[in-house]
Amino acid sequence: MICYVIILYFIGCLMLSKSFLLGSAAVFVAFAATGPARAEEGMWTFNHLPVATLQKTYGFTPDSAWIEHVVQSSARLAEGCSASFVSGGGLVMTNHHCANSCLAALSDRTHDYFRDGFYSHTPAEERQCPGMELDRLDTISDVSGQVADATRGTSGAAYTAAMQKVESELTRDCVKGDPTHWRCDMVSLFHGGQSALYRYRRYQDVRVVMAPEQGIAFFGGDPDNFSYPRYDIDFSMLRVYDGGRPVHTPFLKFDPMGPKAGDLVFTSGNPGRTQRSLPASALAFQRDVANPAIIGYLSTREGMLWEYSRQGTTPAKEAQDALFGVQNALKSYSGTQAALRTGDIVARRGREDAALRSWIEADASRRKEYGDPFHDIEQAVAVQKTLFPTYLALRMAMPGLAEDAVTLVDGAAEREKPDAKRHAGFHEAQLGEIETSLGAKTPVYPRLETDTLALGLSLMRQTLGADDPLVTGVLGTESPEALAERLVKGTKLADPGVRVALWKRGRTAVDASSDPMIVFARRLYPAYARLRERMLNEVTSPLHKAEGDIARAIFARAKAEGHADDIYPDATFSPRLSWGTVKGWTENGTDIPAFTDFAGMYRHATGSDPFALPKRWLGAKSKVDPATHLDFVSTNDIVGGNSGSPVIDRNGHVVGLIFDGNLPSLAGDLYYDISSNRAVSTDTSAIIAALRDVYDEPTLVHELLDGHQAAASGAAKP
Amino acid sequence: MICYVIILYFIGCLMLSKSFLLGSAAVFVAFAATGPARAEEGMWTFNHLPVATLQKTYGFTPDSAWIEHVVQSSARLAEGCSASFVSGGGLVMTNHHCANSCLAALSDRTHDYFRDGFYSHTPAEERQCPGMELDRLDTISDVSGQVADATRGTSGAAYTAAMQKVESELTRDCVKGDPTHWRCDMVSLFHGGQSALYRYRRYQDVRVVMAPEQGIAFFGGDPDNFSYPRYDIDFSMLRVYDGGRPVHTPFLKFDPMGPKAGDLVFTSGNPGRTQRSLPASALAFQRDVANPAIIGYLSTREGMLWEYSRQGTTPAKEAQDALFGVQNALKSYSGTQAALRTGDIVARRGREDAALRSWIEADASRRKEYGDPFHDIEQAVAVQKTLFPTYLALRMAMPGLAEDAVTLVDGAAEREKPDAKRHAGFHEAQLGEIETSLGAKTPVYPRLETDTLALGLSLMRQTLGADDPLVTGVLGTESPEALAERLVKGTKLADPGVRVALWKRGRTAVDASSDPMIVFARRLYPAYARLRERMLNEVTSPLHKAEGDIARAIFARAKAEGHADDIYPDATFSPRLSWGTVKGWTENGTDIPAFTDFAGMYRHATGSDPFALPKRWLGAKSKVDPATHLDFVSTNDIVGGNSGSPVIDRNGHVVGLIFDGNLPSLAGDLYYDISSNRAVSTDTSAIIAALRDVYDEPTLVHELLDGHQAAASGAAKP
Repeated sequence: MICYVIILYFIGCLMLSKSFLLGSAAVFVAFAATGPARAEEGMWTFNHLPVATLQKTYGFTPDSAWIEHVVQSSARLAEGCSASFVSGGGLVMTNHHCANSCLAALSDRTHDYFRDGFYSHTPAEERQCPGMELDRLDTISDVSGQVADATRGTSGAAYTAAMQKVESELTRDCVKGDPTHWRCDMVSLFHGGQSALYRYRRYQDVRVVMAPEQGIAFFGGDPDNFSYPRYDIDFSMLRVYDGGRPVHTPFLKFDPMGPKAGDLVFTSGNPGRTQRSLPASALAFQRDVANPAIIGYLSTREGMLWEYSRQGTTPAKEAQDALFGVQNALKSYSGTQAALRTGDIVARRGREDAALRSWIEADASRRKEYGDPFHDIEQAVAVQKTLFPTYLALRMAMPGLAEDAVTLVDGAAEREKPDAKRHAGFHEAQLGEIETSLGAKTPVYPRLETDTLALGLSLMRQTLGADDPLVTGVLGTESPEALAERLVKGTKLADPGVRVALWKRGRTAVDASSDPMIVFARRLYPAYARLRERMLNEVTSPLHKAEGDIARAIFARAKAEGHADDIYPDATFSPRLSWGTVKGWTENGTDIPAFTDFAGMYRHATGSDPFALPKRWLGAKSKVDPATHLDFVSTNDIVGGNSGSPVIDRNGHVVGLIFDGNLPSLAGDLYYDISSNRAVSTDTSAIIAALRDVYDEPTLVHELLDGHQAAASGAAKP
Repeated sequence: MICYVIILYFIGCLMLSKSFLLGSAAVFVAFAATGPARAEEGMWTFNHLPVATLQKTYGFTPDSAWIEHVVQSSARLAEGCSASFVSGGGLVMTNHHCANSCLAALSDRTHDYFRDGFYSHTPAEERQCPGMELDRLDTISDVSGQVADATRGTSGAAYTAAMQKVESELTRDCVKGDPTHWRCDMVSLFHGGQSALYRYRRYQDVRVVMAPEQGIAFFGGDPDNFSYPRYDIDFSMLRVYDGGRPVHTPFLKFDPMGPKAGDLVFTSGNPGRTQRSLPASALAFQRDVANPAIIGYLSTREGMLWEYSRQGTTPAKEAQDALFGVQNALKSYSGTQAALRTGDIVARRGREDAALRSWIEADASRRKEYGDPFHDIEQAVAVQKTLFPTYLALRMAMPGLAEDAVTLVDGAAEREKPDAKRHAGFHEAQLGEIETSLGAKTPVYPRLETDTLALGLSLMRQTLGADDPLVTGVLGTESPEALAERLVKGTKLADPGVRVALWKRGRTAVDASSDPMIVFARRLYPAYARLRERMLNEVTSPLHKAEGDIARAIFARAKAEGHADDIYPDATFSPRLSWGTVKGWTENGTDIPAFTDFAGMYRHATGSDPFALPKRWLGAKSKVDPATHLDFVSTNDIVGGNSGSPVIDRNGHVVGLIFDGNLPSLAGDLYYDISSNRAVSTDTSAIIAALRDVYDEPTLVHELLDGHQAAASGAAKP
C-alpha cells in the first residue's frame, strides 16, 4: 500500500506535518533533481504536459478542457493522500487506508468500523472525519521571477532567510486574507529552476459515507502488501461539505466496467517526493547511513507494536494504526534499500554525475555559471552524516504527544519573530493548519503512548550513548521507562482543547506551563532548534543550491541537445499527471498477469487473518460473478502520495483507484524502470460489484452511475 | 559484552548447537581465511606460537612450561565462553554473562539470582548448573596427512562425504570409547592447510559458587554494552566436580593488584570465528544481503521482547535472557555492518584479492596448483544469495522447542545412516552432546515460547511471501499466531524427559509421534534437509575448497617472501593465545584512558536501571577505596568466544578477566586495527575488593589468594 501516510510517518512528516524539523517543503526537496523522460516515466505538472510526446506515443492529445476537467475533479487530502470527486454531490473516492485515521477516531467501544466497515444510508448518518482536510487545486502561478529577485546573490543562512521572507510574503498575499478557505504552497520545481505558487480551495468538513471492512480493503495484510497478484478492494467514499451542504464541483464520470488490458490510463494525484537525479554521494548516504538506521528503528517499533497487539482485543485495536504505518514504511524503506544495495544505481548515478561534471568543466563559462555542485553536495552530505544520529535520536524521542509539545514550544518561539524570519510551517498563513492539527481529536491510548515514548527514549540513548549531553539532559537520573510514565501520566495534552488553548495563549503560557510534557519539550527544544538551524544552513540550503545548479546544467545541456521538453520535475506532493498502459510484467521468468478477479480472492481466503474474508463476502460468494476484475497493474509512474489517485481513461472517466505499487516500484522515488515498476489499482468494476452485490448499497451505486446525489432522506449535520 | 552466546544466537549456533543447519565447524569455517601478523594482531594456536616475534617485540619468550601451564589452567564452556582455573580446588573464573543460563535455570519464584546475586558459603550450597559443560584441552594432534589422504581428488558432494567420513573416524577413535569423559573436535586450520584433532577432558558437573548481582556485572546495561569507559564487574565463580568431588588441576595464580598501564598481557581463550582474509565478494554478501536481513530480524525481536518485558515482573524475568542475547547480537552485527559500510574494508580486500590473483596468474605452475579460487567463491556466493532467504526463514521458524523438534526429526534420520555418511554433529562420538543438550532443564515459558514462534512464523511469511510453497506448506490455513498457540499448547517437548525419551526411541517413535511440535518439525524438515544439502554442496564445500586454495597461495607467497612464520590461522572456537599492551586509545581527538575506577562507577550511578547500583554497592561506598581499578582496556586481539578469558601477565598470573570489546572492535572478526581495537577486562583488583569489601566473602578471597579450597564445612552434593 503506497500510503503517503507511510512517508509522512518518517520522512514525509518533514514536508507536511506540524513540526518542520528540517525546514519547509521547498527547502527539503532540495534533495530532488531533474530527470529526462523515458517512455512512460514522469510525473508532470498540469501546466506543462508533454502533449507532443503523448500524441506521438499514444495518438492522444489531452485538450485544455480535458486537462481542466481532470484538475478540477482531483483533490489532495492534507494528511498525505490523493482523491477524486466522483459525483456532483461532493462524493469523493479515495483509498480505505487514506480514511484510516478517520475510522479510528470514529470507532469506539460499541463500533469497530475497521472490522465491520462504515455505512450511511442517509446524509444524516454520514460522519465528519476529525481533522481531515481536503484541498482542491484552484490556480498555479509562476513566481520564479520574484523568488530569483529575492534570493539573488545570497547563500547559506542569508539564502535561507531570503527564501523564508519571499515565501512568507507570497503565500500571505495568495490566501487573500482568508486562510480558512484558501491554502497556498510555494512549490520549488526543478530545484529552484522554477518556483510556483499553488493555491488550493480548502475543505475542512469531510464526512465518511462508506468504507468496507478492513478485511477486504487490506485483504492479505502486511504479507501481501506491495505484492502482486493482489486481492484488495481498497476504497472509501467521503463527502465534502461547505457551510453544512455538499459541495458541487466538476467530477469524474464513474465507469463501472473498468479498463481493458493494453488501455492507456492516466493518474491524477499528488506524488510525495522523488529524487530521480540524486547525486551518487547523496544516494550513498541514504544507503549507508540513513536507511539502515531508519529500518532498524522501524523494525524495533514493529516488534514492539506486534507484541503490544498480542495483549488482547483492545490493545490490538489501539496499536492497529501505528502497526500498519510502521510495517508499511518498513516494506517501503526495505524495498528502496534492496534496490540501492543490490542494483547498480549508485554506480550508474556516479557515472551520470561524472558525465555532467565533465560537460560543465569542458567550458569556462559553464564553470563560472554552475561551479562545482558535486563537490558542494559531498561537503553537505559529510555534515549530514555527522548530524544524522542526533536527528534520528530526536525523531525517536518525540512521538505523539511529545511532538505536539515540541510544536507548542516551537510555535510559541517562532510566532514572536516577524513572519519573514520564521521557519517554514510557522508563517502567518500556515498557522491555521497547525491549530487544526493540534485540535484533531485523534485518540490517545495512555499505555501505548507511554510504551512508544519509553522505547523511543531508550533508542535515543542507544543511538547517542548514555554519556551524550542531549541524553543526560533529557533523561536526568530517570530511566526512559520511568520518564515516559511520568510524562504521559501527568500531561493534560491528550485533550485537544488543552493543546489548542495553550497554542492560542502563546509564549508566556508555554514558558509558564508546568505540564510535564511541555517541561520535557522545553528540555529537548534547544537541541532541536540547534539541529534545525545547522541542517538548514549547512545541509539543506547548500544542497538546494547545488541541486539547483545541477538542474540548470541538465536543462542547459538538454536544450543544447534539443530535448528540453522531455524533462519533468521531481515530485513535490503537488498535483501531477502520469500515464501508462494496463499490463503485467515478467518476474524471474514468470509472467505476472495484469488483472486479478473475485475467483482468485476466494481461492486465497484461508479463513485466517489477514487472509480471512469478512462475513459479508463469504455470504455473497454465490451472488458475485467470479470473473469480475478485482485489481490491475499498469505502467503508470507513481510513488507514495498517489494513494487514492483516480485511474482515468482517454474519455476522462474513472476506471480504477490507485492503492499500491509492486515490490520493484519501491525504488520509484529514485528511478523508474518500465520493465518491472507497476502501479496497483482496484478496478472500478470491483467497486460497483461490491456495492451492489455485497453491501447492498443501491443509493451509492446510483449516485456513482448517475453522477448525482439522491434526494436527501435526512438532514445533514456535521 | 562479547558473548559467544551472541554469535551462538544466530551464526554460532551453526558451529556448535544441536542442529547443524549449515554443516560442521570444519565445513562452516570454510568462510574464514588466513592473515599475515601485524604488531599485536593474531590469535595463535598453542603449538605454533611466534616466539621469535614475541622476544623481538617484548623481550619475552614464553617457555614450554609457561605455555603448558597456561593451557592446562584454561578451559572452554561448551555453550560458547572461555574460562580459567583459579585454584587447585577446581575453582573456575568466567564472566557473569557466561553463567546467565545457569542463573536463569536456578532462579525460581523465591530466588532471583540475577537481581540478588548467588552466594554459597559451604560446598553444599554450591549448585549444579543444568546442562553446563566445561572442556579442558588435553592434546592437539596434527591429522593433516590423514585428511589430505582421505579427500584427495574429491570435490562437491564427494568432498563433503569424504570429509565427513574421515572426521567421523578420527573423532571416534580419539574419544577412546569414552565420549562421556572425552570430546574430540576436528579443527580445520588455515582452511584445510592444516587439520588438527583437539581432545578435551569433558566436565559435566559444573556448579556455581558465587555470582554478583546483574546490576553490577552488567552495570550500564545495553546502553553501555560495547562502550568504554565502562564500570562492570562481570565475573562469576564456578567449581568443577568429577565423581562428586572438586577436580584438582593446574591453575593460574590470582594477582590481587591487577595490571599496570603498558604491561604486556596475554589472553588464553576460545575466539569463535574470524574471517580475516574473507574475499571481497563474500564480504559484500555479508554487507548487502546477510547482515541487513539479520539486523532487521534481531531488531524486530528486540522490540517484541522489550514490549513483552513491559508486561510485569514475571514477563520481564522470562524475557531477560533472550532480550540480552538479542540486544547483544544486534550491537555486534550493527558494529560489523557499520565498519563494512563506512570503512573501505571491502574495497581494500578487493585490492588484496586482486594482488593475490595476479601473483597466481603470473606463473603457469601456480595457476595449475591454485586454479581461480576467487571465481569459485563468486559462484558459491551467487548461490548463497539465492538460498539466503530460505535459510533465514527457516531460522526464524524454528526457535526454542521447534528447534528441538527439528533436531529430533533430523537426528532420527541421521542415525539411520552409517556414521561416515551422517551430517556433522550427528557422528556417533557427538551423540552424547546432543542428548545432554536435549535434556537440559532450560525453563520454557509458554507465552514467550508462543509469541517467539508466532513472530518467527510471521516473519518467515514476510521473508518468502505468502504464496511460497514452504510458507503454505508450514502454515496451511492457519495464521502464524494460531499455529504457534496450537503447537506450544499441545506439545509435551517442554519436558526435558520427553525430549530425551523421544531421542532415545529414535526414528519409529519420531515418525509415529502425534506431538504437534514434532508434526510441525516433520513438515519443515524436507525443506530444511534440502537447504542443508544445497548449502553444503554448492556453497560451503566450494567455498571451503577455494578458501583452502587461497590460504595455500598466501602461504606459498609468504614463504617465498620469507615471513611464513608470521601467519596465524583464523579463529575456530578452539584454544588460542593472543597478547597486547594495557593502554587506552584516541577517539575523535579524545583520549580514552586505559583504566576506570570505583569512583567513576559511583559517579555514573543515577539510581535508574540499568545505571542503578545494587544495594550492597550503595551500602559499601564508604568501605571501598574509590581509586581501585575497575575495568581496563588492552590491545589484545579477541573476538566473541573470548568472553571469560583470563588476562595473564608474564609470570603466568591472572590480572584480569576479558568481558567485552569496545565498539571499534566489533569488526574484529574481519580485521584488527591496533589504533582503536581494544579488549575490555574487569581488573582482578576490583574482583578482590568486591569479594572482600562488598560481599564479605573471606573464604573465597582466601581461596583465590592462597590457591587452595578451604576445608569443607559441609558435604557437597550435585
